[in-house]
Amino acid sequence: MTNAEMNFKALLKKMNHYEQALSLMAWDSRTGAPKKSINQRAEAMSTLSSEHFALSISDEMKQAITHLKEDDTLSHVMKRAVEEAEKMYNEHTKIPAEDFKAFVLLQSKAEAAWEEAKERSDFEFFKPYLEELVAFKKRFIGYIGFEDHPYHTLLDDFEPGVFTETLDSVFSELKKHLIPLVKQVTEAETKPETSFLFEHFPKEAQKNLSEAILKTMGYDFDKGRLNETVHPFAIGINPDDVRVTTKYDEHDFRVALLGTIHEGGHALYEQNIDSDLINYSLAKGTSMGIHESQSLFWEKFVGQSYPFWKTNYPVLKEYASGQFDNIDLDTFYYALNEAKPSLIRIEADELTYCLHIILRYELEKELFEEKVNVAELPRRWNEKVEEYLGIQPENDGEGVLQDVHWSSGSFGYFPSYALGLIYAAQLKEAILKDLPNFDELIETNQLHVIQDWLRSHVHQYGKVKKPKDIIHDITGGGIDPQPLIRYLTDKYTKLYNL
Amino acid sequence: MTNAEMNFKALLKKMNHYEQALSLMAWDSRTGAPKKSINQRAEAMSTLSSEHFALSISDEMKQAITHLKEDDTLSHVMKRAVEEAEKMYNEHTKIPAEDFKAFVLLQSKAEAAWEEAKERSDFEFFKPYLEELVAFKKRFIGYIGFEDHPYHTLLDDFEPGVFTETLDSVFSELKKHLIPLVKQVTEAETKPETSFLFEHFPKEAQKNLSEAILKTMGYDFDKGRLNETVHPFAIGINPDDVRVTTKYDEHDFRVALLGTIHEGGHALYEQNIDSDLINYSLAKGTSMGIHESQSLFWEKFVGQSYPFWKTNYPVLKEYASGQFDNIDLDTFYYALNEAKPSLIRIEADELTYCLHIILRYELEKELFEEKVNVAELPRRWNEKVEEYLGIQPENDGEGVLQDVHWSSGSFGYFPSYALGLIYAAQLKEAILKDLPNFDELIETNQLHVIQDWLRSHVHQYGKVKKPKDIIHDITGGGIDPQPLIRYLTDKYTKLYNL
Repeated sequence: MTNAEMNFKALLKKMNHYEQALSLMAWDSRTGAPKKSINQRAEAMSTLSSEHFALSISDEMKQAITHLKEDDTLSHVMKRAVEEAEKMYNEHTKIPAEDFKAFVLLQSKAEAAWEEAKERSDFEFFKPYLEELVAFKKRFIGYIGFEDHPYHTLLDDFEPGVFTETLDSVFSELKKHLIPLVKQVTEAETKPETSFLFEHFPKEAQKNLSEAILKTMGYDFDKGRLNETVHPFAIGINPDDVRVTTKYDEHDFRVALLGTIHEGGHALYEQNIDSDLINYSLAKGTSMGIHESQSLFWEKFVGQSYPFWKTNYPVLKEYASGQFDNIDLDTFYYALNEAKPSLIRIEADELTYCLHIILRYELEKELFEEKVNVAELPRRWNEKVEEYLGIQPENDGEGVLQDVHWSSGSFGYFPSYALGLIYAAQLKEAILKDLPNFDELIETNQLHVIQDWLRSHVHQYGKVKKPKDIIHDITGGGIDPQPLIRYLTDKYTKLYNL
Repeated sequence: MTNAEMNFKALLKKMNHYEQALSLMAWDSRTGAPKKSINQRAEAMSTLSSEHFALSISDEMKQAITHLKEDDTLSHVMKRAVEEAEKMYNEHTKIPAEDFKAFVLLQSKAEAAWEEAKERSDFEFFKPYLEELVAFKKRFIGYIGFEDHPYHTLLDDFEPGVFTETLDSVFSELKKHLIPLVKQVTEAETKPETSFLFEHFPKEAQKNLSEAILKTMGYDFDKGRLNETVHPFAIGINPDDVRVTTKYDEHDFRVALLGTIHEGGHALYEQNIDSDLINYSLAKGTSMGIHESQSLFWEKFVGQSYPFWKTNYPVLKEYASGQFDNIDLDTFYYALNEAKPSLIRIEADELTYCLHIILRYELEKELFEEKVNVAELPRRWNEKVEEYLGIQPENDGEGVLQDVHWSSGSFGYFPSYALGLIYAAQLKEAILKDLPNFDELIETNQLHVIQDWLRSHVHQYGKVKKPKDIIHDITGGGIDPQPLIRYLTDKYTKLYNL
């Protein structure tokens, strides 16, 4: 390694240490930091963030990037590290500091306004903030520049290398199949009986169950811990310290159980990244979409699968308080996989979920193409919900105001959720080729074999492989909605006797 | 405020934010951070510490100190901030970086060696490390310089402004009274019955009791939290975030109860420092000894007092499992205050505790006066234990090797423990003048009145007042062992019918 490379690595390592401190502070803030500590915490985090920012645009960084970009002898990992550093350098230098500061200020005001607006179902109250956020983002796109479509710059923050053409074609294919399938399910004569899902399930027992399931998945408690929070999340401080949180609803055990499996999927990704990548600042998930593919793979393709419950239904009964004793496995499985159109995205089932996302994607794109303005969003929203799901929000609180994302200016984020499910289905078909006994592995609790496959094909690479490379190296092709369409069609046709 | 002052404050504020991050990382490392996270954590902490160090000796800092020292118009708080910054600047610049690095390396090796040596009761194994540590410290004293006695430089790290002359006279006075008193207690005919203290007390109930007692003391759970650890501690991240840990022994409830009160005393100090001092980096306890006076005041003068148990014994019974039902208050109180010579400092009672400390102080002083060498320590230790407590260690593990302090080169630390108890007794007598109904306040659970007194006389000042100023402003005099001698003589003469 040349001196220039070593200096660059030392700089990345230092920046990573700031990131680790900031991640811990964020974790702590959400898992029991004292109420009155928030002001000081915010100030301390702001200082460390500023130092991190300063390093990312320092002369030393600029020189390192300029110098190393010319060097043909770099390893692939080092090349990726330079690319990522340059991307950050550009983002941090192209937006004028004053603008960025004003945007951060607007974000916090807008989030508070959104919370109030949602509470009161009052879109008019939020509208001016949203207009300003969109205007800021358009200006930022102007600073950063874009290829082909302004929305690409937004997508690049979450799913680098995925463009609107791909999304348009993938999503339109999904709509073509899912809208009629959802309609069929809605009109199906048989419906699952679900009341037993909502009987009392003591928190302590759910906690023990969550821990047991995480262990079965291969989550390493020597490199992580499970806590309780209002909004569950997983956070990777580094591959040796990846923490999961969950929430317990004593009248809906699915919240903790499926939530823990979901966050556990995120955590398995981060725990299994090659730790050599830490000092290149590449020991992170490569994109929102690939991250979500891991959580959704575990939640949907394992945790909601029939083979999983064939072996784990008796385990669930052990932890539960008798409510499942007279419910047979098929009835339970049907209930757990109930699908029906609903208004709230985060409560949606896997069948309808992508339609919620597509709706948001289409509106965002129209906004940035200036085909629709902010004032028209509620009407457009309601039209699309009706078109895709056959239902109507009663108010904007359960419509256009339901998600937090726009209130922080996070446009371009939503598509990653759907991509996650699409990727997961692609992975599932690829795994089946290597491990044709996939169902049997789940049934016999050999989840570690599946986890090993994910580790060697996805996890270990961190940010070294970009999302498209991950998918290409596994499937030989690109983003493909067909595996998801096949999966959903097959599963729900059978479940609902269509 | 002048520009120079504002710049200096901004620099201190930034340094304080690093300290806050480091404190949180330290807290997390001791309260459930994943086992395998320690290496990365150590690296990240080392990076932040280095940045903090660099700021403390930066040109900006040097200029600020030089400039502000000449300014006669500074507020008292600002003056103290400059003094403290200069003290840190001198410490950090006088010791050559190479030496300091070698010392830090030695510390971690020596701690590991000490652990092994203690385990095996093998002083010879630890001896070379201890010799090197002492040699390093002597060299450091050479770099920093000293007034009158080399040991003063060591004391200055823990109890600035307290010198060997004071300690010699105070400790010799204590020995004169305590050695015979301990002998009388040892030979007393009546002894407390204590077996009921060791009956099973479920952890969950102890946890609830600990929380209840902390609330009664005035600990603010909106500015802190209680966790479980192997080695209990309190840590002030800032006055709005002061965390306490305790440990639960199901066969000795005193460990958690008195431990929580002790750490709660430390925490009340930090929670009640004027938060304006945060940005002067003065929102910390002013010395080890004053800190210990707060924990010991609460533990000994409140938590082990008769009035406290008059009102809290029924509370204890509620949380316990019946073991106290047939034990009357006087019997319980006598048991809780059992005093007898023992070998291990951290398990010693309040009557014998200072003798453990004086022994260590005398040996440290002899070491740095070169009157004794490291090889002679075990013999000298055992002679002194025999002389002060009338007992003999069976091996060095329960003798000279028992404490961790020397293994990290922390010479000069021990005296603060005894000073804490001396200060606490002085405070108690001073409080009695202002609050003659002290016992009644405790009995009627009006601890907040006592806490208010401590806040206004001690806590609020943080590092603005030095230890000697705190004591002087309260008592009108200096460090005085007589209140402690009066307290112990009175209490144990009565308890043991001497």
